[in-house]
Amino acid sequence: MNAYHQLVEHTKNITHFEHLSAICGWDQAAMMPAGGAEARAQAMAALQVHIHQLMNQPQLTEWFAQAEQAPLSAEQQAVLREMKRQWQQATVLPESLVQAQSIAGARCEHAWRQQKQDNDWAGFAANWEEVVKLSREEAQIRAAATGKTPYDAMLDLYEPGASTQALDSLFDDVKSWLPTLIDRVLEKQSHESVLLPRGNYPSETQKSLGLAVMKQLQFDFDHGRLDESTHPFCGGVPTDVRITTRYSETEFVQSLMGIVHETGHARYEQGLPKAYAGTPAGEARSMGIHESQSLFFEMQIGRNPLFINHLADLASQYFNAHNDPVFAKANLQKLYSRVSKDFIRVDADELTYPAHVILRYEIERDLINGVIEFRDVPELWDHKMQNYLGLSTQGNYRQGCMQDIHWTDGSFGYFPSYTLGAMYAAQFMAAMKKTIDVDGVIHSGDLTPIFTWLADNIWCQGSLLTTDELVKQATGETLNAEHFKAHLEKRYL
Amino acid sequence: MNAYHQLVEHTKNITHFEHLSAICGWDQAAMMPAGGAEARAQAMAALQVHIHQLMNQPQLTEWFAQAEQAPLSAEQQAVLREMKRQWQQATVLPESLVQAQSIAGARCEHAWRQQKQDNDWAGFAANWEEVVKLSREEAQIRAAATGKTPYDAMLDLYEPGASTQALDSLFDDVKSWLPTLIDRVLEKQSHESVLLPRGNYPSETQKSLGLAVMKQLQFDFDHGRLDESTHPFCGGVPTDVRITTRYSETEFVQSLMGIVHETGHARYEQGLPKAYAGTPAGEARSMGIHESQSLFFEMQIGRNPLFINHLADLASQYFNAHNDPVFAKANLQKLYSRVSKDFIRVDADELTYPAHVILRYEIERDLINGVIEFRDVPELWDHKMQNYLGLSTQGNYRQGCMQDIHWTDGSFGYFPSYTLGAMYAAQFMAAMKKTIDVDGVIHSGDLTPIFTWLADNIWCQGSLLTTDELVKQATGETLNAEHFKAHLEKRYL
Repeated sequence: MNAYHQLVEHTKNITHFEHLSAICGWDQAAMMPAGGAEARAQAMAALQVHIHQLMNQPQLTEWFAQAEQAPLSAEQQAVLREMKRQWQQATVLPESLVQAQSIAGARCEHAWRQQKQDNDWAGFAANWEEVVKLSREEAQIRAAATGKTPYDAMLDLYEPGASTQALDSLFDDVKSWLPTLIDRVLEKQSHESVLLPRGNYPSETQKSLGLAVMKQLQFDFDHGRLDESTHPFCGGVPTDVRITTRYSETEFVQSLMGIVHETGHARYEQGLPKAYAGTPAGEARSMGIHESQSLFFEMQIGRNPLFINHLADLASQYFNAHNDPVFAKANLQKLYSRVSKDFIRVDADELTYPAHVILRYEIERDLINGVIEFRDVPELWDHKMQNYLGLSTQGNYRQGCMQDIHWTDGSFGYFPSYTLGAMYAAQFMAAMKKTIDVDGVIHSGDLTPIFTWLADNIWCQGSLLTTDELVKQATGETLNAEHFKAHLEKRYL
Repeated sequence: MNAYHQLVEHTKNITHFEHLSAICGWDQAAMMPAGGAEARAQAMAALQVHIHQLMNQPQLTEWFAQAEQAPLSAEQQAVLREMKRQWQQATVLPESLVQAQSIAGARCEHAWRQQKQDNDWAGFAANWEEVVKLSREEAQIRAAATGKTPYDAMLDLYEPGASTQALDSLFDDVKSWLPTLIDRVLEKQSHESVLLPRGNYPSETQKSLGLAVMKQLQFDFDHGRLDESTHPFCGGVPTDVRITTRYSETEFVQSLMGIVHETGHARYEQGLPKAYAGTPAGEARSMGIHESQSLFFEMQIGRNPLFINHLADLASQYFNAHNDPVFAKANLQKLYSRVSKDFIRVDADELTYPAHVILRYEIERDLINGVIEFRDVPELWDHKMQNYLGLSTQGNYRQGCMQDIHWTDGSFGYFPSYTLGAMYAAQFMAAMKKTIDVDGVIHSGDLTPIFTWLADNIWCQGSLLTTDELVKQATGETLNAEHFKAHLEKRYL
């Protein structure tokens, strides 16, 4: 066996252990009783140590050196490129730093859960200072190894190939029109009225409805399932994708659209190229492309008024509420396109969401690059929140810079993926419309042509192409904000 | 860290991977969609290889040698004894034999699924010959390493300390009275009539009823859960025990008593000593003792007429069937004590079950010891079946020697555990009755005194004592068939 094939076999072996980690992680969130937590955490930690050891085996250095000299096909070169990227990212940090980050992150995150409720910035900052310091060290080391700036090196963990330069340009574009657009939409919506769901929507019925919608979205139930968890997610492995949702019995709209969103993640996983299963080339391209698929399902299909008509039919049938005006098509369409300026990112609508992300991006970029300090964050947050959404978070840390979990354990570089995903989704839809009558297809109820386009252009590509190549091949252009802007204006104005 | 503590840490690390194996195994049986099977099988195989490698690390030989010279407490000596037993059992076979067995066993078992339906002994025998040959090799190697006879060395995998000598004596005793007892009971029952459940018992209602019964049996839902699978089992880990059942909507009695049975397994696991968690001393003592707890719950509690009265109340309440004569206490008592001579072990009742087990024990003992050959099995089966239950299996392999899965992949030595479990359960009950008014306790509905006795005498002992020590300490005598005989006569005559 030559070095390339040795690397592939070694990588597949690691993937087997990641498979077990994904299933046990899903179980932890969706099935495990509370009393099982401690022993499970220990078992999962032992598994992570084992994966880390496999990733750090000394012969890999030699194998990579040999494989890079070998004559490889274009696809083998892509597999090698991705294996090497994951290996370098996993091995470049000294153990001592990883351990220090793990301890500081766990301490900060744990304390944050209470401090957030108490609006206790001083208490949080005392722990967070260390987290930021260690993340800067991490970014410096990653930067030195890749020749990137510190923040770009962090970004690379989630969005390989993304850069501050490109993001600044994209997000400056968005900032130039978004605040005005939000105000125009709010003015328009202030004249509309909408009926909110009120009453009793049993979880069992919501689940049956959710399964019916997943079926319409052609989720492959032979390779996946739907369950419940406190925080909805898409987990498992491509051959067995586990999505979850959370039901509130006083309303059904959130859980229903949440299922549409997770089904987008799931179909991407289910559609990844089987020929490259177990290697990174058979994995999702990036967090942003993953989010582009969930947001394509949610924003480009799910909240399309013609799809909402199907949801209205299905929902009124499952809840046996044909004459309930809440379930009227026009009302559900309004419910699913309401816009409001608010403090909390996770509750934000499609239109204001980018403002929340850009704010975080700008702050974490400057924080990791050493342009600002951790103590500057609350004031900057307030300042940007006033600029982008007209809201002040002065003294309101709880609904300001302490609201998200991401920064508490040092996950810097992740936030941009959310809005990149929304932009990619809009650009994919614009490209798809060149060859497919999307509205006609959605109206018909058989969405096959849409999924075939996504399967061919995105899903089955895995990570064989770089993100830029993938997007250019699928849409004819690199990522830009024009299609996103056009989509938002068309939907909300 | 001294050698003893190094061994304990190493063993705990292995336990972490066995934890992941148990949860993913449960998931495979209870949750996984069919399309996930292939990738899961590969991931599980990689996990087994890793556990095997951990078990075979060269430094263990030295650590065991050192630990055996060190001054250890009595409990540490017990932990060391059990660690060494598991290590020796796991490492004594050459890799080539393990691999050959795995291939031959998988081939034989796979083909058997169809051959059984086709009553195809010749086809089965062609594969099984190799399985038997390899199992004999295994038994020879294990015998040489332990100084036991070949069959005793196999028995030791499931029942440490058990011997052919002891089993022959116990089972000869049973054989001396069982056939006559069965005939007397059948004669008595031939004059009784019983109403069978007929109709529609929804799975959801059966599940709610099952959960209510588990609550009465004090299953700890903070450390376990109930789900469904084709073949009911008790899996998971002591801090998170997963039991399953299977619902048939045309009757409820099987699933209900199946849940009682698995709850017995589960409470044993939940009651194992936490101070020894992760070491073999914190594990169940043997398959026979494990079965003694499920059979204690099923036969000594569950089928006690006073407990059936509670089941009748609960069942008629859950099925809203207060006037249905099927749910009358006397009828349910009869339903749960019906005896019949039949071909199939897994469907056998409490009274005829030992006959099925003794027959298998006698055949596999002689087969592994080289006294008989694989081709002799059908005739011996027919002969013994006629002697013990008055049934002929001449030419009927499907309902004869091809009915069980155990032998198809070489699991010889397991069958005796079933009947040992039934005997232990009866002996534990006899001992318990010396200090507890068991019938009064069961009638009251609060079974706490029974569970306290089991927790103190069996569960919290883990594997600190040998099986003989455990039984003698709990009951004042070593295992004998007297209590089992008395129990059967009292219940069925």
